Amino acid sequence: MQKIIENNKDFKIVTGGITYPKGIKASGIRCGIRVNKKDLALIYSEKLAEAAAMYTTNKFKAAPLIVTENNLAKSKGKLQAILINSGIANACTGKKGLEDAWETINYVAKGLAIDHRYIAIASTGKIGEPLPLKKIKDGLKEAISGLSSTGGTEAAEAILTTDTLKKEIALTFWIGEKEVKIGGMAKGSGMINPNMATMLAFITSDISISQELLKEALQQVVEKTFNMISVDGDTSTNDMVIVMANGLAGNPGIIERDVNYSKFLKALYYVGEYLAKCIVRDGEGASKMIEVEVKNAPSFNEAKRVAKAVINSPLVKTAIFGGDPNWGRILAAVGYSGVEINPEKVDLYLKEKIVEGGQPLKFSRQELHDYLSSSQEIKITIDLKMGKEKATAWGCDLTYDYVKINTKYS
Amino acid sequence: MQKIIENNKDFKIVTGGITYPKGIKASGIRCGIRVNKKDLALIYSEKLAEAAAMYTTNKFKAAPLIVTENNLAKSKGKLQAILINSGIANACTGKKGLEDAWETINYVAKGLAIDHRYIAIASTGKIGEPLPLKKIKDGLKEAISGLSSTGGTEAAEAILTTDTLKKEIALTFWIGEKEVKIGGMAKGSGMINPNMATMLAFITSDISISQELLKEALQQVVEKTFNMISVDGDTSTNDMVIVMANGLAGNPGIIERDVNYSKFLKALYYVGEYLAKCIVRDGEGASKMIEVEVKNAPSFNEAKRVAKAVINSPLVKTAIFGGDPNWGRILAAVGYSGVEINPEKVDLYLKEKIVEGGQPLKFSRQELHDYLSSSQEIKITIDLKMGKEKATAWGCDLTYDYVKINTKYS
Repeated sequence: MQKIIENNKDFKIVTGGITYPKGIKASGIRCGIRVNKKDLALIYSEKLAEAAAMYTTNKFKAAPLIVTENNLAKSKGKLQAILINSGIANACTGKKGLEDAWETINYVAKGLAIDHRYIAIASTGKIGEPLPLKKIKDGLKEAISGLSSTGGTEAAEAILTTDTLKKEIALTFWIGEKEVKIGGMAKGSGMINPNMATMLAFITSDISISQELLKEALQQVVEKTFNMISVDGDTSTNDMVIVMANGLAGNPGIIERDVNYSKFLKALYYVGEYLAKCIVRDGEGASKMIEVEVKNAPSFNEAKRVAKAVINSPLVKTAIFGGDPNWGRILAAVGYSGVEINPEKVDLYLKEKIVEGGQPLKFSRQELHDYLSSSQEIKITIDLKMGKEKATAWGCDLTYDYVKINTKYS
Repeated sequence: MQKIIENNKDFKIVTGGITYPKGIKASGIRCGIRVNKKDLALIYSEKLAEAAAMYTTNKFKAAPLIVTENNLAKSKGKLQAILINSGIANACTGKKGLEDAWETINYVAKGLAIDHRYIAIASTGKIGEPLPLKKIKDGLKEAISGLSSTGGTEAAEAILTTDTLKKEIALTFWIGEKEVKIGGMAKGSGMINPNMATMLAFITSDISISQELLKEALQQVVEKTFNMISVDGDTSTNDMVIVMANGLAGNPGIIERDVNYSKFLKALYYVGEYLAKCIVRDGEGASKMIEVEVKNAPSFNEAKRVAKAVINSPLVKTAIFGGDPNWGRILAAVGYSGVEINPEKVDLYLKEKIVEGGQPLKFSRQELHDYLSSSQEIKITIDLKMGKEKATAWGCDLTYDYVKINTKYS
């Protein structure tokens, strides 16, 4: 039975993850790619689901992404199962990597007795090493026999690499008299082993919605959530987000941008933002989460560029780690973001307004230092006073542990 | 008497700095902005010099840059003196900052009895604090009386902030029977105090050259040297490079892109690359210099984007610090650079060729680890096999000391 975590006017957030929606089963097992850690997760929908996915923009796109994209094109956006392995990324593996990815798809198709086009796969781990097909084939049998409607948490554990916490969420809302559920899980970047740096997220729902609208909703949400986070500005070869909606909630199918679509979009956004923030909070070596809100920009894209410049600045990130109210570094990042800002208009808030029109106000550095040192979530607000659009980005501080984690000789 | 450091076919590199060319005097003194450290440098040319400057692209351009740009426009690219202070950046200081910058110009004009349009100023240090005008005014008297044709090194010391080494160079070459000299000095970024992160470089010469060609030469050289370095990807509000050429060498004036212009361009490039490399070698917390060469790109700009993505990647930088032959991180950075590369063509060299056509070759990880650990200069070569253009970028590794230096509460 799910415990209620929060009950707001729009939806109820409960304990649980991807197996919370009707008809979704999952499992997470150890097949032996990693040492003493689960490394294979399977998600299965009893009913063929509408699905949409978004992929890394890295030109070195890993084999599992290419194969999944290909399958979703052939099935016109329908999925029934997703297999995810951690430990090996199957990236920069050439022809052999693609063959291995297709072979993995075939194992799942045979094991679940479903068409191969309805299967997605994802990988995270070392770059340049081949998938251990035998281990995956054998492990898959256990994963299939272990599929269960309470297996979400095990799956959420199996996709982690060096993340310190599992990341999952479940929520529910009503469309008329039908209860609709959404579940999600994600992994962030941890790099004790080399080249492990992949953001993966999987979202399930029992909502009935057209594939076109599901895709549109995912794109909108990803742009404002997963695409707005950064641990170190490095974009992985394996990033992927997939959403499946199997329709088992029984709501009247959503086929236009009506009030029910808005409800779903809001819920999906909540799930996206929640998982995205989990990832940065658990970023490599992170001790604090940083939220940067850019207000009154001429466009969303310009707001986003400014927010991302600040969230990616090593100087801002180290200052936050040190509790240093070093506002000049924030303004400098705003200034080099590439956006045509007007320096004489910019206001900056860090706990309180500390810069107005590009110049510092009087404030207590000691108080601000104490605030920065004692808070785990730091909010920076930048008011460009140039328009009406805004964007929020999330990141984390840059710590000794980040260097430590990423310095280790493989 | 200068000691010869290197004598190659194009020019002779000797000990010395900005006062090496004829008619250039300088001084470096302590006026009291910084504690126990020189903080005011003055460069003076006996003869009015042709000059050119390039400025930060940061929208929060500091007051001294605005004033200098304004003066160079009014004087049509002529300069006779440059005053540089360290400790205070005079950035994000608004109207007051501009007034202070003009006031400083006036002090120099009066003290040297020259027109105010022939004066440039530069500042590096804390953002958001006003210039201590009284200290500068008093210090300037000492700086003027101390001007000397052997004062280059003291000036090079006075512009440093937390750089650990002074950065200067002197070289000479012949145009017909006339000896032409070039001197240069620079500072890089060090941030023990907050907001100190400015790249400044000053180059002097006694060559006779038109202002137009001097400007063109500076732009070409800066684009391929100073603009190709990165310590942390943060662009300062105060970056500036100035070149002065007073004509005292007596060579036939260079007024077209002839063989003598080429000689000068080559020498200026050498000076630019030398100083730029000094800056990254002395980058904050750096233990190794990294050189990234991108070959066979469709254009210089695309080669540059790829090289800069690699040099700025925190994952590449930490791997190099740890001696980790983590080639996957390098390819990932190539892949997210935004350039339309073809992953199946990319070769990667790290000591030897380790990736061919986007896939790893067999190599000894241990040998490569030993090489990376024992070398102070790491060269990465990326062959895109897509064209004929190339670019080289220089950077440094990301170390515990970088975090330490930039974490301190001001």
